Amino acid sequence: MTAIDFSAFIDKLATVSGEAILPFFRTSLTIDDKSTGGAFDPVTAADRAAELAMRALIRDMFPGHGIVGEEFGADRPDAEYVWVLDPIDGTKSFISGMPAWGTLIALTRKGRPVFGMMHQPYYGERFSGDGEAAQYRGPRAERTLMVRPCESLDRAVLFTTSPRLMNAADRAAFGRVEETVRLSRYGGDCYAYCMLAAGHIDLVVETELKPYDVAALIPIVAGAGGIMTTWEGEPAETGGRIVAAGDRRVHAAALKILQAG
Amino acid sequence: MTAIDFSAFIDKLATVSGEAILPFFRTSLTIDDKSTGGAFDPVTAADRAAELAMRALIRDMFPGHGIVGEEFGADRPDAEYVWVLDPIDGTKSFISGMPAWGTLIALTRKGRPVFGMMHQPYYGERFSGDGEAAQYRGPRAERTLMVRPCESLDRAVLFTTSPRLMNAADRAAFGRVEETVRLSRYGGDCYAYCMLAAGHIDLVVETELKPYDVAALIPIVAGAGGIMTTWEGEPAETGGRIVAAGDRRVHAAALKILQAG
Repeated sequence: MTAIDFSAFIDKLATVSGEAILPFFRTSLTIDDKSTGGAFDPVTAADRAAELAMRALIRDMFPGHGIVGEEFGADRPDAEYVWVLDPIDGTKSFISGMPAWGTLIALTRKGRPVFGMMHQPYYGERFSGDGEAAQYRGPRAERTLMVRPCESLDRAVLFTTSPRLMNAADRAAFGRVEETVRLSRYGGDCYAYCMLAAGHIDLVVETELKPYDVAALIPIVAGAGGIMTTWEGEPAETGGRIVAAGDRRVHAAALKILQAG
Repeated sequence: MTAIDFSAFIDKLATVSGEAILPFFRTSLTIDDKSTGGAFDPVTAADRAAELAMRALIRDMFPGHGIVGEEFGADRPDAEYVWVLDPIDGTKSFISGMPAWGTLIALTRKGRPVFGMMHQPYYGERFSGDGEAAQYRGPRAERTLMVRPCESLDRAVLFTTSPRLMNAADRAAFGRVEETVRLSRYGGDCYAYCMLAAGHIDLVVETELKPYDVAALIPIVAGAGGIMTTWEGEPAETGGRIVAAGDRRVHAAALKILQAG
């Protein structure tokens, strides 16, 4: 059974999580602060409701599968197939009413992401990929996702969610990339990786990512022809410091600068 | 004749501009660089097509009115009624495929904005206001826009499009505000002002804005109960350095810090 057989099921997960989230978007929210007095880290009722809904569906359908979720931790994380869930990636965008957030749903097999979806339920957009191909389905269009060529870093459009999320050393390294590119923009969250897969931007550089922040995006970016690794050039699925690029030349140039720190 | 009589006409302007823009969003674009070798300043065919469509409609319907547009300059700017148009506010978001852009349409009377609309045609969202009231119409909801209370700056959620757009002195002043607030986020463009009007965020601080960047947003923010001025506390319609807040206490506290430079 290949990963692609799960795609209808992933659509169901997207649907139930979207239904759980939408009543909470752009309404008054009670915000828990997960952190113990440090950085602002909102967790919403929507986040929890969506993860519970997806977990219930997975347990019903695939009781042997593992589940790792942002909100409720790991359940059988060593199973052959593990679902990796981030019900709201971009919670800060979410609580600000901004559309740059999404639900990340990944299926890993033996630790490698084999299928991923980014679902934006408010606008009804689904970006998905299996590492070989990737597609977009939205209210206005349905199309194959494909990265665009970009011959050099100085022609690249770069996104990062916020340089304020980086430690000082990483921010300095990021700054050197930022000074080189054609255009640098902030605020993307998971949406930026999907725009890279769609060929609208060329580079995403981030830090401090968790496995559930990246697992769903890796098969989308790879499926669209892009490359996504750590700053060291290692597989991205562990999270941490991540570079995604549509063109390998841009990826290599960015890695070189980031590693020169 | 009050400004509110123009609201059906503004809807028409939004519709024709949206139709002109949409074929260009998320497609390959030829990007002109308006600047002469300085900062990246994209202008798209969409921008021009939308402004021409709106100008034609205004000239047909209200030949005595003035028009000031981002792309094609000023025509009878001293008329009693002047339309102020920014077909794509957030061109950098636009070319990146990100949704945080919109069409800004304002009607000014004797230099004061009396009606404004922010239209996001891709998602079919319209935010409008006349300084007394403001409303949202979208595919999932239609509702009155109202700012939320926020008792102090340290409870506020702040947006700015990018601190990289600010000169060094302004960026330092902005940084002092940023250190005080609960959450600071980048990347809003016109969308951030609408989220402020909708009560999702509390503060927007920006610089280097043109009159056509702000004219449409002023009646929306004011109509939702918010306040929008320059950093000096003067009327915002000339653009420049702008502070918008949902709560006057937050506005006053931000002004104090920004002026302490």
